[in-house]
Amino acid sequence: MTSSATRATEPAGLEEYLDRARRRVDETLAGYLPEVDAAPSALCPARLALAMRHSLLGGGKRLRPLLCLMAAEACGGTAESALPAACALEMVHTYSLIHDDLPAMDDDDLRRGRPTCHKAFDEATAILAGDGLLTLAFEVVACDVQPASAALRCVQILAEAAGPRGMVAGQMADLQAEGRAEASGGPADGTVAELEAIHRRKTGALLRAPLRMGAVIAGASEPGVQALDRYGRAVGLAFQIVDDLLDIEGDEAKMGKRVGKDSELGKWTYPRFLGIDGSRELARQLAEEAVAALEPLGSRGDRLRGLALALLERDR
Amino acid sequence: MTSSATRATEPAGLEEYLDRARRRVDETLAGYLPEVDAAPSALCPARLALAMRHSLLGGGKRLRPLLCLMAAEACGGTAESALPAACALEMVHTYSLIHDDLPAMDDDDLRRGRPTCHKAFDEATAILAGDGLLTLAFEVVACDVQPASAALRCVQILAEAAGPRGMVAGQMADLQAEGRAEASGGPADGTVAELEAIHRRKTGALLRAPLRMGAVIAGASEPGVQALDRYGRAVGLAFQIVDDLLDIEGDEAKMGKRVGKDSELGKWTYPRFLGIDGSRELARQLAEEAVAALEPLGSRGDRLRGLALALLERDR
Repeated sequence: MTSSATRATEPAGLEEYLDRARRRVDETLAGYLPEVDAAPSALCPARLALAMRHSLLGGGKRLRPLLCLMAAEACGGTAESALPAACALEMVHTYSLIHDDLPAMDDDDLRRGRPTCHKAFDEATAILAGDGLLTLAFEVVACDVQPASAALRCVQILAEAAGPRGMVAGQMADLQAEGRAEASGGPADGTVAELEAIHRRKTGALLRAPLRMGAVIAGASEPGVQALDRYGRAVGLAFQIVDDLLDIEGDEAKMGKRVGKDSELGKWTYPRFLGIDGSRELARQLAEEAVAALEPLGSRGDRLRGLALALLERDR
Repeated sequence: MTSSATRATEPAGLEEYLDRARRRVDETLAGYLPEVDAAPSALCPARLALAMRHSLLGGGKRLRPLLCLMAAEACGGTAESALPAACALEMVHTYSLIHDDLPAMDDDDLRRGRPTCHKAFDEATAILAGDGLLTLAFEVVACDVQPASAALRCVQILAEAAGPRGMVAGQMADLQAEGRAEASGGPADGTVAELEAIHRRKTGALLRAPLRMGAVIAGASEPGVQALDRYGRAVGLAFQIVDDLLDIEGDEAKMGKRVGKDSELGKWTYPRFLGIDGSRELARQLAEEAVAALEPLGSRGDRLRGLALALLERDR
């Protein structure tokens, strides 16, 4: 029988490592949320706390937190030190899902296999739950990331990635490309370069930020930060291409959301521009690019290498 | 003839001071917003930039920025040093107005004398403009407040005030009190204590934060921070009571928004619980309490004293 102390020092398989890290993220996320307290004196109304809990703790791949923890470890820091930043990233991601799912935006009923926030509650509550998660993310980074200089840098990175030159801009550009934002002036059809420009902001920015934040928290040298940033850019785009492929080929039950919606809505996707095989090939090239970027990290980059390749094979 | 250098050192009248400070805030706000750039390569889509601009630069009393600048000066700092924090506060306030005005929330068509953001643009754009302003606020504080220790403290104060135990909680509680959040479980009628609990969060928290942020930026001693915090609590509540009175007695043209809406919606207001005279008396008492709190600051608190009294007489 192996003692748990011995087991903890063995190099765990990637899947086992990811499962353990996901559980640690989930526990920590739960602790950051306002309690569900029905007393009239509760600072956070129970309905708001329930809505935030419904969306934040309702499953999910936790990819952004995992990237942040793994980046910190790849730079010689501990996963534990990156947990607050990792949780903040998941809060920002979840807020963006809640708002994007609203009837005025993508109008989705299903997310992570459960009713979307405005379906489980109502639109007003969903808007506020999103606003609350976004704001709480900055509170968590500012209060809990150590040292203070890393906390401030992480607020900057997170705000830039999520803001009106990052994720919010990407969502706006995406709506315009679909022609669903009225009088948008968006082109009726575009190029793969325009599609990439959307995704670099809409999903890419918040997939790149975890790498930079993890590196900053671990006190990485500039070459280390740069290596992880190149990895993040490539992995972020590869992730999006696989997402587009899964919307065509994926299993709704595994995905926990509707599939086939992109083409219904006339969305710009990689398969639309490059075909299925061309898209797969591009995702593979990007994953290789991500792996190559990790070269300066040596064996410390092994888990991130494994993750980049595993993302190509994902089915949800 | 008085040289401008001499004039600048004269104690200006409060109105003149406020007008000048408002202009400085407006200039700085404009500089923080993404440019309106119709090129496809623009990081921020023109429509999003326009919507943020429409709401943020569309007038407004700029009360929260003014309180922040005046707090810094009252603690021996400069107004200039508090400008980034002041602008961030106005961004957070404006985001909250954009989201509160949405059809799913208060469903307002007019704000600051102009169409609300979702009327001038559309709902999706308004949701994103609000999200963008909230996120940009944290970027501005983290990047531009000096020194770094004050920046981090200001992110903490701002996030706590605006988040799910502050402003967002207050808006949720307000919707529940109106019974407009479905299945809310909110009481059909309440007490003045419950009303105060709503306002302490919905408007009070973001009126208190500017005082604390200004004091922190000026490197105030703990008694100074405490004095300004007491002032902020009292002024914040007095401001809300006057707001309730203006919804009954105010002039729509001056206010730049619909009046009489509170009673139509069956909203909890101070006049509903205390009558008009009782509400006026309470506002007066709170303004006096605010003035008394400034005692430790001596003559440096004069402008804040004047502002507390002027807020009682405001007509918009």
